[in-house]
Amino acid sequence: MFSHQVRKYIRSFHLQKYRQKYNKFIAEGPKIAGEILSSEDCKIVDVVCTSDWFETHRQDMSHKHINVHIVNEKELKSVSGLKTPHSVLLLCEQMPVLRKEDIMSSAWSLYCCDLQDPGNLGTIIRTADWFGVKNIMLSPHSCNFYNPKVIQSSMGSFLRVRVGTFVMSDLDPLKLNFIALALDGLPIHNLGPQDAGVIVLGNESSGLDKDLLQKMTHRVSIPARGQAESLNVAVACGIALDRLVGYPA
Amino acid sequence: MFSHQVRKYIRSFHLQKYRQKYNKFIAEGPKIAGEILSSEDCKIVDVVCTSDWFETHRQDMSHKHINVHIVNEKELKSVSGLKTPHSVLLLCEQMPVLRKEDIMSSAWSLYCCDLQDPGNLGTIIRTADWFGVKNIMLSPHSCNFYNPKVIQSSMGSFLRVRVGTFVMSDLDPLKLNFIALALDGLPIHNLGPQDAGVIVLGNESSGLDKDLLQKMTHRVSIPARGQAESLNVAVACGIALDRLVGYPA
Repeated sequence: MFSHQVRKYIRSFHLQKYRQKYNKFIAEGPKIAGEILSSEDCKIVDVVCTSDWFETHRQDMSHKHINVHIVNEKELKSVSGLKTPHSVLLLCEQMPVLRKEDIMSSAWSLYCCDLQDPGNLGTIIRTADWFGVKNIMLSPHSCNFYNPKVIQSSMGSFLRVRVGTFVMSDLDPLKLNFIALALDGLPIHNLGPQDAGVIVLGNESSGLDKDLLQKMTHRVSIPARGQAESLNVAVACGIALDRLVGYPA
Repeated sequence: MFSHQVRKYIRSFHLQKYRQKYNKFIAEGPKIAGEILSSEDCKIVDVVCTSDWFETHRQDMSHKHINVHIVNEKELKSVSGLKTPHSVLLLCEQMPVLRKEDIMSSAWSLYCCDLQDPGNLGTIIRTADWFGVKNIMLSPHSCNFYNPKVIQSSMGSFLRVRVGTFVMSDLDPLKLNFIALALDGLPIHNLGPQDAGVIVLGNESSGLDKDLLQKMTHRVSIPARGQAESLNVAVACGIALDRLVGYPA
């Protein structure tokens, strides 16, 4: 029985208001569901799935306390945010947030300043995970980490990072190596790999504001050779991680 | 008068079938429209716009042969592919295609093998433009260059590249420096900047096939330090361009 009440409850988590109120979030599709099931760090509360999906995964769920709702395609579509829902939707508890101690005890962190596009944030998380960077700081006006599009486009990498919201001025006392990506900085290949730092990414359209730029240890640019106005922020982040984090010899 | 017939005609170009048949494509929004208006290389056939947009741009259009349709918001929405249409939609003629001669006379080209996601292709075009790479080759099963989502996410860069469809075996006789991005290649920073070449990008989920990999001059990888399964293809393309194309000293 997939009641109207349960349906309404689950659907509410497409909105940030309810995600925040109940500290939960939605993840969809068999690939992400598989990754969450095998992760130690993410607690599943509800599973809405087809009977086929349930049969192949009941073993993995047997030792966990999960409310399982077996539904048909139409019922799944009624709670899904995807155009074409795929066999399973999970409702999970939000994971522990990133703390200042985590930042102090890790070599690298990212700081995303007023990042708006959830697809870009998801891709940034996936890219950070590729380079082994676990700490993602968001400014208060950035898009929400648990936005389903962020979860979807991070391709499971959201499970391996810690995310927290920070005002830049709270970080000042930490005396970190802040490296901003800006349009008028030192060519990034001239700075070269660093031992540790915080890579600061600006908003896609407005960039970083002047006050913030003045607090940076370094300001670097990816030199343009063509005529494009800007790089996509996730692409710029990838180039920065590749150049700055460096590789074991 | 915005007749049903005109509406139907314009709307048909959201489909590849009609784009191909009439050699035209759609571009939307004031930013892209502005770039197309000031470009020499892209011929506008029809403009569907609000009266406000028309008033501020009539000068720019006065010396061109353009059919102008002044419409209200609702009529604009009826031909738009965007959730929130913005004041203007253009119907343009497709631009000249990339030829083998262009490839032979340029240092760098990209080859996208079975790339499916139009947003990724648009971001790749924008990134290529940033690094001054003008030649984009697509394999026959890649998504279509004139897909409105490609045009939209290329942020105007589509105007500054040349695109053509090529079967890889047609390129064999050209004896180019083919550099494939693969998961098991030489670390990309060990290869270093090259004088010229074709950067070959694989499909997001299946990568590049074995036969194709054997034709490559180099096979390079972006070494993973974390646990992500893969990088987004546009991010990987950005890192490759940054490492391989190099910068003037």
